[in-house]
Amino acid sequence: MTLHTDATLDAVTDHCRRCESEHLAELLPLLAQPSVSAQGIGIDACAAMVCELLERSGFDAQVIPTAGAPVVYAERCPRPDRPTVIIYGHYDVQPPDPIDAWTTPPFEPSIRDGRIYARGVGDNKGQFVANLLGVRAWLEVVGELPVNVKFVIEGEEESGSPNLLAFVAANRDLLNADLVYVADGQVMDDQQPIIEFGNRGLLFIELRARGASRDLHSGNFGGVAPNPAWTLIHLLGTMMTPEYEVTIPGVHDAVRPVIPEMAHALKHAPLDDAQILASIGLTEPAPPAGLSFAERTMTRMTCNVAGFSSGYTGEGSKAVLPAEAIAKIDFRLVPDQDPMDVFGKVVGHVKAHAPGVEVSLIGTMNPLLVPLDTPVATAVRRAVARGFAGMGADPADVPMDGGSLPSSIWSDLLDIPTLLVPYANHDEAHHSPNENLKLDRYFAGIRTAAALLDELAKTSLSD
Amino acid sequence: MTLHTDATLDAVTDHCRRCESEHLAELLPLLAQPSVSAQGIGIDACAAMVCELLERSGFDAQVIPTAGAPVVYAERCPRPDRPTVIIYGHYDVQPPDPIDAWTTPPFEPSIRDGRIYARGVGDNKGQFVANLLGVRAWLEVVGELPVNVKFVIEGEEESGSPNLLAFVAANRDLLNADLVYVADGQVMDDQQPIIEFGNRGLLFIELRARGASRDLHSGNFGGVAPNPAWTLIHLLGTMMTPEYEVTIPGVHDAVRPVIPEMAHALKHAPLDDAQILASIGLTEPAPPAGLSFAERTMTRMTCNVAGFSSGYTGEGSKAVLPAEAIAKIDFRLVPDQDPMDVFGKVVGHVKAHAPGVEVSLIGTMNPLLVPLDTPVATAVRRAVARGFAGMGADPADVPMDGGSLPSSIWSDLLDIPTLLVPYANHDEAHHSPNENLKLDRYFAGIRTAAALLDELAKTSLSD
Repeated sequence: MTLHTDATLDAVTDHCRRCESEHLAELLPLLAQPSVSAQGIGIDACAAMVCELLERSGFDAQVIPTAGAPVVYAERCPRPDRPTVIIYGHYDVQPPDPIDAWTTPPFEPSIRDGRIYARGVGDNKGQFVANLLGVRAWLEVVGELPVNVKFVIEGEEESGSPNLLAFVAANRDLLNADLVYVADGQVMDDQQPIIEFGNRGLLFIELRARGASRDLHSGNFGGVAPNPAWTLIHLLGTMMTPEYEVTIPGVHDAVRPVIPEMAHALKHAPLDDAQILASIGLTEPAPPAGLSFAERTMTRMTCNVAGFSSGYTGEGSKAVLPAEAIAKIDFRLVPDQDPMDVFGKVVGHVKAHAPGVEVSLIGTMNPLLVPLDTPVATAVRRAVARGFAGMGADPADVPMDGGSLPSSIWSDLLDIPTLLVPYANHDEAHHSPNENLKLDRYFAGIRTAAALLDELAKTSLSD
Repeated sequence: MTLHTDATLDAVTDHCRRCESEHLAELLPLLAQPSVSAQGIGIDACAAMVCELLERSGFDAQVIPTAGAPVVYAERCPRPDRPTVIIYGHYDVQPPDPIDAWTTPPFEPSIRDGRIYARGVGDNKGQFVANLLGVRAWLEVVGELPVNVKFVIEGEEESGSPNLLAFVAANRDLLNADLVYVADGQVMDDQQPIIEFGNRGLLFIELRARGASRDLHSGNFGGVAPNPAWTLIHLLGTMMTPEYEVTIPGVHDAVRPVIPEMAHALKHAPLDDAQILASIGLTEPAPPAGLSFAERTMTRMTCNVAGFSSGYTGEGSKAVLPAEAIAKIDFRLVPDQDPMDVFGKVVGHVKAHAPGVEVSLIGTMNPLLVPLDTPVATAVRRAVARGFAGMGADPADVPMDGGSLPSSIWSDLLDIPTLLVPYANHDEAHHSPNENLKLDRYFAGIRTAAALLDELAKTSLSD
């Protein structure tokens, strides 16, 4: 079997451009099907629709049960000698509330001003369907795929992917691959395609301090009963300095040094710091001074007070000496910090400084940073450049997303790198009313997926 | 005119014992009249009832308007050569919510198990009416009072007495007196009558820190946007140590040293520290160790976090980087701290440590401590001993109440000492459902007031 020529991809891409009406029509029924994992609405029906679309597109597809929502799995592996890509996505969506804030109903997709409006169109139905249709175009034009493709479309991403790890662990053999490719999230600038190589990890905990057995009058008992709000304030003061340096002993030990390649990528990340700050109403970032947005979100752990509640904070005065105080803290972690290792150190620190304070684990995700200089990364860069040709700058590397994703599951369990390419426009409004995806970006995503197979077919993994 | 004899008071007291049914009947209509200052319910009607009761009892009474609820003022001053006492009380009550928690309706007084149940029976209608009826008994038995008596019954105490200062300032001449006598609050132990000589003051403020213009995703912006919860945590950490020592410069400067007389009273205050701690579910008090309940509530200022709110503290996790954090702080102050002086020092401290944090003044009350060794104090001690004879121990001095009252108005403006004698039982449930007053304590209060006039008549203020 000979390698196809560039002319082949041109033919596939031309086909994609001719089929845009059909590609839009394939997406709309899926958008009209509610699939809210948090509320258990429409999940099975949506999984069946995704499975049917994959089968109809030429894949061996199946709905695989998990302890929660099922995973739709499909594969077509005609080329044992060529690379294999897993295309990961999710068919579940965020709850559409507040419904009243939508211009058109969230599950009645509406096209206006060059955008598709619907809950889940960007996050993530429109993005994984773009990948599916770009792959299918090869079958329609050439009759076969140039590489091996597997789809893993899960139904619980919006609920934290609680069963993805178990699914991957139980299906190691099925999931053998060279790359996990994800189209999710949105770009910061519609003129600047990006490729993300990882994400920060997460440790989410709750701290709870207790004082007297009930709320007291602060006059009658002030100075007598300990105040649990003060207990947490003093404890937290030992955990991070006003300069935002986390001071829990040992938590920085595992942080991977910034290598020159990463430093270069950070310096050239396509981020306009002043513009980002202005967009959130700031002129100065948090301490310490002198760091770029990229350095802040990609190389540093955080200790964030996500919530603090104690006593009475309504109108006017109520002289309460509270019986309880709660703080929710999320730590964003960088490679190679291990959330459970950090948790152990946090627990030890709390025991040392405020032994009465309860520490509860709410959730973890591992940080991830895959190498920037691999052959599959080169293939993805080239595919994005071809798919988004004429729609802005050349694609740029963004080493990490500041947020946290379950992507490390693939690295941790199967040693497969994950690369993430957001197709959605910067104002996608994911998780918000009037979620939308620009039509031209949806179609560019389809062409990107088609180009990805071409680039992977040319990639020698022994490079 | 000769001084009456002890036999005179015995006759008055005997009269009081014979009239208990009538004394109960006088109180009930007042309890049935709602008078909720916070909600503006029944205030004028209740003021009119109090005025009518005073007139009917032999006083020149009037309803005097203020910027808020009116004050009922009454006087009978037959003895220019003898002391004058102002009896202060309030006819307004707390809102009765939650109504469902009442066994009988809050404004339908019910007598059972030796108690009167009604909103306001202890706080304060039953207590000022006891004083009124004890005074009236002199008129009924002797035909005249042995000293001069003025009543000031206000209608906004439960709303912080916002117009009492202006009323007193505007009526300085009317309010000339030697003692302000108040029956309010409850005892700690029904077997131990007490006399209080002051109360802590109050400075209530709100701190508000702001970060970005909206709540952010803590992954996308963690390390970039300042977190206002952290701003307040670090600021508050500079205001008080974990040992509960307030560290705002200069705030302790005005604290009056504990004089030997006060030290003696603190040591002998009838307080069972272990029992008090047990009643609020504690075995150890707040730091520092080694202080008694009396020392904690009577000699030390506090800096209490009455409320702290930022971000999300509901179930589970929500990765918020909050845009705002609010803390409500009340400082309890001791003589001779001036709330506005302390406020100025707090503002200076905040400006120095967290200049972006807004400080709002919510309210102040001055601390008060009147001398323990005055002739009027001796008269009050003797009166309580006689009124409560046979109902427990001899009355004990409690130098200060840890809470805050507007009592210092009388000292600050008119140089009149205020002494406070709680008639109500320890389980009065003031501000709560099923507020109640024990009948035997109501009647003992009436006898105490009768005895007070006798003791004051025997008191030479030039002693």
